[in-house]
Amino acid sequence: MATDTTATAPYRERLRRVQEELERRQIDQILVGPSPDLRYLTGYDAHTSERLSLLVLPRTGKPSYVVPTLEAPLLANLRDLLDIQTWSETEAPAAVVAEVAGTGGGRTVAVSDQLWSVFLLRLQETMPGKSWCSGSETMAALRMRKDEREVGLLREAAHRTDDAWEEFVRQPLSGQTETEAMRRLQALTEARGLRAAFGICASGPNSASPHHHTGDRVIEQGDAVVFDWGGTLDGYHSDVTRTVHVGAPDDEFRRVYAIVLAANQAALDAVRPGVACEEIDRAARSLIAAEGYGDAFLHRVGHGLGLDVHEEPYLVSGNRLPLAPGMVVSDEPGIYLEGRFGIRIEDAVVCLDQGGERLNEANRELTIVD
Amino acid sequence: MATDTTATAPYRERLRRVQEELERRQIDQILVGPSPDLRYLTGYDAHTSERLSLLVLPRTGKPSYVVPTLEAPLLANLRDLLDIQTWSETEAPAAVVAEVAGTGGGRTVAVSDQLWSVFLLRLQETMPGKSWCSGSETMAALRMRKDEREVGLLREAAHRTDDAWEEFVRQPLSGQTETEAMRRLQALTEARGLRAAFGICASGPNSASPHHHTGDRVIEQGDAVVFDWGGTLDGYHSDVTRTVHVGAPDDEFRRVYAIVLAANQAALDAVRPGVACEEIDRAARSLIAAEGYGDAFLHRVGHGLGLDVHEEPYLVSGNRLPLAPGMVVSDEPGIYLEGRFGIRIEDAVVCLDQGGERLNEANRELTIVD
Repeated sequence: MATDTTATAPYRERLRRVQEELERRQIDQILVGPSPDLRYLTGYDAHTSERLSLLVLPRTGKPSYVVPTLEAPLLANLRDLLDIQTWSETEAPAAVVAEVAGTGGGRTVAVSDQLWSVFLLRLQETMPGKSWCSGSETMAALRMRKDEREVGLLREAAHRTDDAWEEFVRQPLSGQTETEAMRRLQALTEARGLRAAFGICASGPNSASPHHHTGDRVIEQGDAVVFDWGGTLDGYHSDVTRTVHVGAPDDEFRRVYAIVLAANQAALDAVRPGVACEEIDRAARSLIAAEGYGDAFLHRVGHGLGLDVHEEPYLVSGNRLPLAPGMVVSDEPGIYLEGRFGIRIEDAVVCLDQGGERLNEANRELTIVD
Repeated sequence: MATDTTATAPYRERLRRVQEELERRQIDQILVGPSPDLRYLTGYDAHTSERLSLLVLPRTGKPSYVVPTLEAPLLANLRDLLDIQTWSETEAPAAVVAEVAGTGGGRTVAVSDQLWSVFLLRLQETMPGKSWCSGSETMAALRMRKDEREVGLLREAAHRTDDAWEEFVRQPLSGQTETEAMRRLQALTEARGLRAAFGICASGPNSASPHHHTGDRVIEQGDAVVFDWGGTLDGYHSDVTRTVHVGAPDDEFRRVYAIVLAANQAALDAVRPGVACEEIDRAARSLIAAEGYGDAFLHRVGHGLGLDVHEEPYLVSGNRLPLAPGMVVSDEPGIYLEGRFGIRIEDAVVCLDQGGERLNEANRELTIVD
């Protein structure tokens, strides 16, 4: 049976580019478990489980994929790209990896970030004498710069999420729990063809906790409410945050909102190829600090966005990596006043030759709801 | 402010029991990242991300939790159990772990299974001279045997899932895609208060692939359709599989169905304290083999079920671990005929003093739908 090699061509090219990176970094092979890294390299959206499923990619030659027998049918269309090595329920998969990887030789082995430690420990035991290192930089070198199709998917995911928001925010919030509100917002997002990926709804004093777990608190008059949510389109994430106020806000809320909005704009304005990641953070942070809220901006200004919702490059103090065309990052300054309220405004931004372009178009102005 | 110590009492007890296991195994400390292991030990349902968040539990003394500053508010109610050590966005978290873990001393460090390799590699680099080992057995020793509350949650999750099935299967399937059918089944499950966790719908020839990815195939007359899905109740999973036939099946399908059903019953009948896990697998497998389908039963007969959907103990050839009261396992024999059809029937089973008790009550008899 003929295989459709046009479908695998982009992956063949990515695998080749990883091999170039391995050459550059003098890494002999990289092992990639179920993760966005694997999906990026092969298109295979493997399920993470206690059964070892692993791409073994040597610096030269054809890559192998070590997979439980019962998962093998899912890889049928990748046989021209990968040598498929199955293991049965009673075999030790690490030994299969050792055999496959051993034939590639070499001492330095990189491992994908999200591979479970239980597998790494077993591999370290089964393949003594190897030098193990992180595959983060090798993979980030490829994944950070999105191609046209990837930017298209991220833009489309952002627009659909914006569209869900515009419908969502026309309804009152007061009297609903955080969970109910987030469920409605996710349903609107899914109705637009995205798969729900995550969602934070933080109301009243909870809004001052940036990573609040959405819960049973009932939203009431006088609350600030932060919504931070996203979905995926063919694996690519949207990630947007909007903060609304239930009923008329006081002057301080209005002032802080204006500061966060200005910081969001300042970060966007700073995006340009060649500018260090930390400078984007600094642009937002210095503005917030000048207004006296520096200590209340608890996190970095942003992160890369793609097949992972958080990925390289991170927009954080100390990261001197220069931005480059095709990088897509979040721009999400926030101010958090403990016990009172928090405000965060987040858009996805793509770095183009001429500067940053927002992918999100949902209204950013202060919105008052019932 | 007084802390409600009654809420943390069960976790204090579990932490104490892990420390006993560490003593027994001569492990000096265990590091537990975001995972069901962490939730089991602390109740904290941490989000897995690129920011290191880690329980450091020494063999003696108070455990610490190393957490990003912006996540710290979520741990407020655990301060009597754990010393909270925060790290800011510009600090190196592995160094914080090294400092915290260093004070505990000792050479042997266990790591929770699902901790990302990127963290383990960084810790191995930051804490040279340590001997790293898997925390699997330490954690499994506690988690395998469910207490009364846990069995209650697993039973309730199973019943609600069964109830969703009974409503689901009254409607026709023909003409729907696998994705549409699974979405409806998950919605019915969620309507009963579970959080959807996973779902496989495999129709026609796809049903012969045990881990098929639910897709766009349209279900039609003459199809076998396997539904394998589950949700969580307070973190505890249901996991049930039913296979239906669209329109009247032929004799072979009926025969194979009867064999799988008998194998499911044989495995259940074999469950009893003291019986080795592999014997449960053998009970189902020998029956299927005697009917001539041994090669078509591609996987182990079952796995433990709890905060993870797959966890210890595994009912697989080679596993001599004896069953004990409180263990909850899946019983899921299957026969897969490539290119034609597959049949799997799965229930959750709890091991009691007197033998196995099914937690699932959904109809197991051959069901024909339109």
